[in-house]
Amino acid sequence: MTLASWKDGPARQAIVDFVESATTPGPAFVEVADRIATFDNDGTLWVEQPLPPQFDFVFRRWAEEVKQEPSLAEQQPYKAIISRDPEFFQGIATQEPEVIDALLAAFVRTWAGTTPEEFDAQVREWLQTVKQPKLGVPYVELVYQPMLELLEYLKANGFRVFVCSGGGRDFMRVFAEETWGIYKENVIGSAAEYTYTDGRIVRAEKLLGSLDLGPGKPEHIFAQTGRLPVFAGGNADVDIEMLEAARFALLVNHDDEEREFAYTSGAEKSLARAKELGWTVVSVKDDWTTVFGKEKGQ
Amino acid sequence: MTLASWKDGPARQAIVDFVESATTPGPAFVEVADRIATFDNDGTLWVEQPLPPQFDFVFRRWAEEVKQEPSLAEQQPYKAIISRDPEFFQGIATQEPEVIDALLAAFVRTWAGTTPEEFDAQVREWLQTVKQPKLGVPYVELVYQPMLELLEYLKANGFRVFVCSGGGRDFMRVFAEETWGIYKENVIGSAAEYTYTDGRIVRAEKLLGSLDLGPGKPEHIFAQTGRLPVFAGGNADVDIEMLEAARFALLVNHDDEEREFAYTSGAEKSLARAKELGWTVVSVKDDWTTVFGKEKGQ
Repeated sequence: MTLASWKDGPARQAIVDFVESATTPGPAFVEVADRIATFDNDGTLWVEQPLPPQFDFVFRRWAEEVKQEPSLAEQQPYKAIISRDPEFFQGIATQEPEVIDALLAAFVRTWAGTTPEEFDAQVREWLQTVKQPKLGVPYVELVYQPMLELLEYLKANGFRVFVCSGGGRDFMRVFAEETWGIYKENVIGSAAEYTYTDGRIVRAEKLLGSLDLGPGKPEHIFAQTGRLPVFAGGNADVDIEMLEAARFALLVNHDDEEREFAYTSGAEKSLARAKELGWTVVSVKDDWTTVFGKEKGQ
Repeated sequence: MTLASWKDGPARQAIVDFVESATTPGPAFVEVADRIATFDNDGTLWVEQPLPPQFDFVFRRWAEEVKQEPSLAEQQPYKAIISRDPEFFQGIATQEPEVIDALLAAFVRTWAGTTPEEFDAQVREWLQTVKQPKLGVPYVELVYQPMLELLEYLKANGFRVFVCSGGGRDFMRVFAEETWGIYKENVIGSAAEYTYTDGRIVRAEKLLGSLDLGPGKPEHIFAQTGRLPVFAGGNADVDIEMLEAARFALLVNHDDEEREFAYTSGAEKSLARAKELGWTVVSVKDDWTTVFGKEKGQ
């Protein structure tokens, strides 16, 4: 079963060579304590088209809010979302820090005052009922099977695997254990502060630390783990700093329109950097025998 | 070896009963994913008298700074430290939030701009050279043997063990792995923000989130793990919220002047709360056959 969905090509070989050298006594050996592997989520572990899935969750919530209070439709980000402003959506697709920042400000506002149980219930309902528009299945079924195998392979070799995403830490933690097989504490992401009052954890209207994008990724990884990663996987320009901080960097290149999506938007700089620094670039089309386990939406 | 340094008394029995019921199918069973145990450090895992050891590290550093720049002696907190202002030191001993807050502000200022490697080297030097004044050995040898056995016992029963201290996260992470046998990522504490610039993690002059004291403890535990603890251990009033949040709470009562120290200062409220809520109170004198493994400083 080890890396069974990876074709016997250069990407698979590079992964195996690195892991073997890191776990075998010799010059490239990595102490067990240092074996931290970190992975971006959107576009690295699951489909991020047409938008990172969490936006689907959030926008549905905001649409409900506008129904309750129609005057919100005149305000941002509600206005851009309702009018489907292309510039705004392009900014989301390429994870422009300003756009993401504005969205997250609204995001922390919307859920301020809620408990983890309330938020979890909303995410679970979304996970169970909403389907990805092109592929026609719930988003949680659109996790890349070869990447799940890679997480298992790294764990089997003594790596502690963390997900490190610009998306919401608490959003991902709802499905992390059943979907990725890693504990909630191994999920790193942008997050709100919480206050503990009257015996309850309640969400505050404020981000905790930096956004987990770009330089924020190694910052968050260091804060959570006390280390920088040895192995890192990403797919976009906002992953560059995390990939540069790692000893082995893997970049997923989305070139398979048939089985999922083909695009390089928002990944141009990371593809250039991969060439410069010799990162392992994974072609969805050529390196993976299967994308979603049983192919979805075909 | 299981809990070998615990006398066969009510505290040991309460721990074993709880862990057995939590890991045996039945009404008190705790899912493996939920098995989070959290422990305070100062006074719970190691000696905190005459002051939590990190203050020894910090005050030596500040004394060096005053040598370099004598005018600092007129400013706080340098002034209080040099004059050994009893009110100020009492505030540290009882972990008064205002005093701790003032100290941590100076703390983040002193180390702003340093890298983790620089900070680690300073802590390691302190660990190796400085001795606790009464007991005459390095602080790291003053970890309570029965508590180390308890961490191992919990781990053997599927608990993930975290340390959660008002003290510095990065200070504790230097010795966590060799001393407690838990990874750096299982250490939660008050922490500075870091920025990632030019491929390096550098400390910023700002705290990340709240102080990890009182309500800050469950806040930090939730942020790090996505859960509240099932099992928690503490010894002071600043641990009350963490202990209240747990299903099983253990409070170390320092009543052994001969083998270490006897005091209840800063723990009065937690001892009252223990009685009210039925927490397991551990008497150092009566419940532990050994305190430091081989008794130190006798």
